[in-house]
Amino acid sequence: MDEMYLMNNLWIMVAFILVILMQGGFILLEAGSTRMKNAGHIAGKTVFTLGIASLAFWALGYGLIYGDSLGGIVGTNDFFFGDFTTQVDGLAGSVDFIFQLAFAAIALTIAFGGFAERAKLSVYIVFAVLFSLLVYPVVAHWIWGAGWIGDLGKQDFAGSTVVHLTGAMAALAATILLRPRIGKYNSDRSSNDIAGHNQVYTALGVLLLWVGWFGFNAGSTLGVDGAFFGYVGLNTQLGAAAGAVAALLIAWAVLGKADVPTMLNGALAGLVAITASCAFVAPWAAVVIGLIGGLIVYGSMKFFEKKNIDDPIYALSVHGAAGVWGTISTGFFATPALAEMNGGQAGLFYGGGFEQLGVQVISVVACGLFAFIASYVLLKATGALTGGLRVSEEEELMGLDISEHGGYGYPENVAYAEKQGA
Amino acid sequence: MDEMYLMNNLWIMVAFILVILMQGGFILLEAGSTRMKNAGHIAGKTVFTLGIASLAFWALGYGLIYGDSLGGIVGTNDFFFGDFTTQVDGLAGSVDFIFQLAFAAIALTIAFGGFAERAKLSVYIVFAVLFSLLVYPVVAHWIWGAGWIGDLGKQDFAGSTVVHLTGAMAALAATILLRPRIGKYNSDRSSNDIAGHNQVYTALGVLLLWVGWFGFNAGSTLGVDGAFFGYVGLNTQLGAAAGAVAALLIAWAVLGKADVPTMLNGALAGLVAITASCAFVAPWAAVVIGLIGGLIVYGSMKFFEKKNIDDPIYALSVHGAAGVWGTISTGFFATPALAEMNGGQAGLFYGGGFEQLGVQVISVVACGLFAFIASYVLLKATGALTGGLRVSEEEELMGLDISEHGGYGYPENVAYAEKQGA
Amino acid sequence: MDEMYLMNNLWIMVAFILVILMQGGFILLEAGSTRMKNAGHIAGKTVFTLGIASLAFWALGYGLIYGDSLGGIVGTNDFFFGDFTTQVDGLAGSVDFIFQLAFAAIALTIAFGGFAERAKLSVYIVFAVLFSLLVYPVVAHWIWGAGWIGDLGKQDFAGSTVVHLTGAMAALAATILLRPRIGKYNSDRSSNDIAGHNQVYTALGVLLLWVGWFGFNAGSTLGVDGAFFGYVGLNTQLGAAAGAVAALLIAWAVLGKADVPTMLNGALAGLVAITASCAFVAPWAAVVIGLIGGLIVYGSMKFFEKKNIDDPIYALSVHGAAGVWGTISTGFFATPALAEMNGGQAGLFYGGGFEQLGVQVISVVACGLFAFIASYVLLKATGALTGGLRVSEEEELMGLDISEHGGYGYPENVAYAEKQGA
Repeated sequence: MDEMYLMNNLWIMVAFILVILMQGGFILLEAGSTRMKNAGHIAGKTVFTLGIASLAFWALGYGLIYGDSLGGIVGTNDFFFGDFTTQVDGLAGSVDFIFQLAFAAIALTIAFGGFAERAKLSVYIVFAVLFSLLVYPVVAHWIWGAGWIGDLGKQDFAGSTVVHLTGAMAALAATILLRPRIGKYNSDRSSNDIAGHNQVYTALGVLLLWVGWFGFNAGSTLGVDGAFFGYVGLNTQLGAAAGAVAALLIAWAVLGKADVPTMLNGALAGLVAITASCAFVAPWAAVVIGLIGGLIVYGSMKFFEKKNIDDPIYALSVHGAAGVWGTISTGFFATPALAEMNGGQAGLFYGGGFEQLGVQVISVVACGLFAFIASYVLLKATGALTGGLRVSEEEELMGLDISEHGGYGYPENVAYAEKQGA
Repeated sequence: MDEMYLMNNLWIMVAFILVILMQGGFILLEAGSTRMKNAGHIAGKTVFTLGIASLAFWALGYGLIYGDSLGGIVGTNDFFFGDFTTQVDGLAGSVDFIFQLAFAAIALTIAFGGFAERAKLSVYIVFAVLFSLLVYPVVAHWIWGAGWIGDLGKQDFAGSTVVHLTGAMAALAATILLRPRIGKYNSDRSSNDIAGHNQVYTALGVLLLWVGWFGFNAGSTLGVDGAFFGYVGLNTQLGAAAGAVAALLIAWAVLGKADVPTMLNGALAGLVAITASCAFVAPWAAVVIGLIGGLIVYGSMKFFEKKNIDDPIYALSVHGAAGVWGTISTGFFATPALAEMNGGQAGLFYGGGFEQLGVQVISVVACGLFAFIASYVLLKATGALTGGLRVSEEEELMGLDISEHGGYGYPENVAYAEKQGA
Repeated sequence: MDEMYLMNNLWIMVAFILVILMQGGFILLEAGSTRMKNAGHIAGKTVFTLGIASLAFWALGYGLIYGDSLGGIVGTNDFFFGDFTTQVDGLAGSVDFIFQLAFAAIALTIAFGGFAERAKLSVYIVFAVLFSLLVYPVVAHWIWGAGWIGDLGKQDFAGSTVVHLTGAMAALAATILLRPRIGKYNSDRSSNDIAGHNQVYTALGVLLLWVGWFGFNAGSTLGVDGAFFGYVGLNTQLGAAAGAVAALLIAWAVLGKADVPTMLNGALAGLVAITASCAFVAPWAAVVIGLIGGLIVYGSMKFFEKKNIDDPIYALSVHGAAGVWGTISTGFFATPALAEMNGGQAGLFYGGGFEQLGVQVISVVACGLFAFIASYVLLKATGALTGGLRVSEEEELMGLDISEHGGYGYPENVAYAEKQGA
C-alpha cells in the first residue's frame, strides 16, 4: 500500500475527529451564552441533531453534493454510502465521507444558534432533516461539487461560505421568523441584556472550537502534501489571536470595560474570517484579517441589536459578518504563489485586479441569498407541520428544559431557587 | 526505519490519547448524572483511579493478559514493562502497551459507575487494584491474549465484551451489594427520580466520549493498513447517530417528552453497540445496530428501575445491555468479505449460519458470568477489608464530598444553600 | 516528497494541537480553583492572553529564541515569520514554528496563575507582552536556542525548566508583589481556606492537561524516529499516575481525609516532574519520579501557606517545586543508553557521577533566578504603567467579573444570591 496515500488518510482521519470535537465547543458556547432554564435542552439537542445530520448526510446528503451534477445545481447519485473499497481524491472513500459529514453537521449546528431559547423541540427535528437535505447540499455542490461557483474559481479553502455563511443565513431566517425572546427588546426599541448563565462554559467552548478548527482548516488540505497543513495552522492561529485581541481592545475602548462575551466572540470571528483565506495569504495578512474580523464582530453585534434582531449566541455576527469579511478578504490578500498552488487568482493588493474579488463577492451573494431564502421557506413549512415554530409564552418563561424535556438541566439550582420564591 | 511501521505507531499513539480523553467524558457524564453534594468526589476519583489502573497494568496487568498463557486462563510473564526496544504485532512495544493500558482503565471507570453516590473512598482504592489485577486481565487474556475464547473465533473488534461488558458486570455486582441509594425506591417498590445535577456536563461528557471512541474503535485496527480506520470510524459515527435518534424518538413516543438523559444515553448505547461489530458490518447495518441499541437502552433503564436495581449513571444499560446486543449483532450482520478480512465467520443474515452467532453468545455468557462472580467475590473481600462497602446513612445524606474528602465540590453553592436552611 | 519528513510534520502538527488543548485544561483548572465572582474573568483572560502570546511570538519571540545568537544570550533575527517554504530541524518551518509558539503560550498561562483573583485586567495585557518578549525568549534561547546552557548538555526534554519553571518564577514574583488575597491570612499568620468554587472543573481541567501533555512531552521528540514518542508517552502516563496516587495517600495519611485539590495537584506534579526526564529514564524511574513529585507538591503547598505566600492555584508548587525536582531527577535516573540517544550524560544512579547532576542544578538556578528577577522588575514597570498591579479592595470584594468586565460570569447564581442578601 502506498505510504503517501495512507498518510493522507491518517491526517484527514485526525482532522475529522477534531471537527467532531467542535460540537463539544458549540455545546458549551451555546449553553453558556443562554439561561439556566434552557441549558439542558440546548446542550442535549446538539447531540441528537449531530445524529440527524449524520444519518441525513449518509442517506442522501453526500450524493446530493458529490453525485453526478444535474446542470451544476445538485448531485444525483452515490446515496447510502456503503462501499469500503472506494477511493476519492486520493483518500479512502470512507475517510473522505466522514470528513465531509462532519462539516455538514457543523453547518447545522451554526444554524441552530438562531433558534435558541424559543423554538420547539419538534422544530429542531424537522428542520435538521430539511436543512441537511435541501439547503446545505446545494451550496456545497455549487462550491465543492461540480457546481457553477467552483467553476468560477472561488477561493473558499475550508468552508467560510459553504459552512459558516450557510449556517448563519439559516440562523438569520430563523431568528426573524421566531422573533425576539420575551424581554429582549422594549417597546421603544431599546434592548435589555439577557446575559448567558456561564462564562466559563463560553470560554472553554471557544477554546475547544479553536482546537477543533485546526482540523477544519488544516484538514482542508485533504492530505499531507508538502506539510502545508502547518502553514494553514499557523495562519489559523494568528487569525484567531488577532481577532481575540482586537475585540478586547475595541470593547474596552468603547465601553470602558472589555466584556467577556465580546472578547470571546473576537477569537471566533478571527477563526471564521481566516477560514476562507488560510491557504491563500501571508501570515501578516492573517493577522490583519483576524484583527478586522474582531472589529467587525463587535460592530455587527451592535448593529443587530439596534435592528432589534435577537441573536442569542451571536451566530449572525460571528459566522455571518466575519465569514463574509473572510471570504472577501482573499480577494484582497491572496498571494500569487499561494493562489497558483491552491487555485484562483492573486488578490487586489498583489496586482491580481478585481477578478478574484468579484468572484468572491458573487459567490457570497449567491450562496447567502439561496441559503436565506431556502431556509426561510423551509422554516415556514416546518412551522406548518409543527403547529408554529415557537413555544408558548408560558413555556418560554418556564424554560425549555421543563417544557420540551420534562426535567430541569440543573434541578438542584432551579428547585432551590423556586423553593425560595425566586 | 520502515515507514509503514512508523505510521502504524503514529496512528495508535493518537488513538491512545483519544482513549485517555474518554476519561474526561466519564468525569462529566458521571458528575452530571449525580447530585451536587457528590460531584467533587466523583470527578476527583476518576483521576486517581486512572492512576491506580495505570500502575497496576504496568506492574502486573499487561503480563497477565499477554504473557505466556497458563492453560488459556491467564498470562504468566512480561511484568513491569520496561524495555523501549521491543516490538509487538507490528507496533513499538511501548505504543502497544499504552494503548492496551488505556482500555484497562476504561473498564475500571465503567465498573465504578455502579458505585456512585454511596461507596466509601477506600473501596475505590482497594477494588481498583483487585479489578485491575484479577478481573479485567482474565477476560482480556481469554479474548485478546492466547486464551480459549479468542481461539473460538470471537468477533469483538474493539472490546465490547472485554471492556464494556466486564466493566458493566462489575458495576452490577457493586450496585447489588451496595443496595439502592437512600430515597431511590419506596416501600411499595415504586421509584423516585434522583435527577443528575448538571445536564450540560452530561451532554458534553457524551460528546467527549463520542470523540474519544474514534480512538477506541478505529484505533483497534492497530495500524493504518488500507486506511481501514476510516471505515471503522464511519460505522462508529452512524451507530452513535442512530442510537441518539432512536432513544429520542422512543422516549418522546412513550413519555410524551424526550428527557435529556435518555437521548444522551441513546448516543452512548449506539457507540457501545457498534464497538464489537464496527469492522464486520456494512454501514446500513451500523445504522440498524445503533437504532436497536438506542431502543434497548431505553427498555433496559426501565427494566432495572422496575427491578429496584439502582444504577445511578446507567452503566448497566449503556455498557451492559447495549454491549451484549452489540456483541451478538455481529453474529447476524457480519459480511463475508469483512469477516474474511478481520476474522470469524459471516453472520446469519449473510448465510453464515448459526456458527458465529453461537460463538458470540457463548463468549458473552462466559465472560459476563466470570466478571460478575469474580467482582462479587472481590467486593465481598473489599468490604471485609474496609469495614463495609457503603458510607453511613449520615455520610450519604451529607454527601461524599464532605464525608470522604472534607470539603465541598461547590462550596459557594452548597454553603449558601445551607445558610438558608435548605 | 520524503515520507519520513511528512510523517515528522504530521506528528508535530498533532502535538501542537494537543498543546493548544492544554489551554482548555488551564481555563478549567484556574476557574475551578478560584471563586465564582472571578470565574468569567479568569476563563476569559486565558483566551485573549493566548492571543497576545501568539502575536508576540510571531512578531519577535521566535527570532529572539532561534535567531542568530548574540553571545549566547539572545537571538537577533528571523522576526515576523512569513515564509512557507523553509525547513527547520527536519520539520516544515511553519510546523516547527507553531509547536514552539504553543509552548511559549503555556509558559505565560502558568505565570498568570500567580495573578489570580486580584490583578487588574490591564496588568494581564501589559505583562503578557513583556513576559512573551523579555523573559520567556531569553530562557528558551539559553536552553533550546544556541544559548550557553544548551551547550553545557542540559537534559530538559520537553521544557520542565524553559516552560514550567520560567512560568512558575514569574508567578512567584507576581504573588509576592500582589500580596495575598483579602482574607487569606490572619494577623497571627494563620491561614484561611479560600476554596475553589467548582471541583468538577478542576478535575476535568487536570484530565485535559494530562491529555494535552502527550503533545507536550511526546511531541518533543520533534518527529517519529523509532516511534520513540510511545516510550515518552509511557513514562508520562506512569509519572502522572504515580503522582496522583502519592498525593492521595499522603493527604489521607496526614489529614485523615484526602482532599480533592491535593490529589488533583498530585497528578499535575507527576506530569511536571516527568517532563524533563521522560526521554532519559526507565519506566520504573518514571514511577519513582512521579511518586516523589506527588509528595513534593503536598509539602510545597503547605510550605507556601506557612510562609504566607498566597498561590491561589498552586502554580508555585505544581510547576515550580515539582518542576525543579523533575529537572534534577534526570541527574539521578538518566540511563546510559537513553542519555546517549538524547544527549547529556547518564545519571548518578547509573554511575554517571555528579556531572549531569551539576548541569541540571546550575541550569535550574540560573534560569530560575533570571526568570524571577526579570519578572519582578517587569512587574514593577507594569505597575507603574497601570497605576498599580492590584484592583482596589472594593473591586476585589465585588469580584473581577464585575470590576474588570462589567458583568457576572454566572449572572443567575450571583444575582440570586444578592437578592437574598448573601
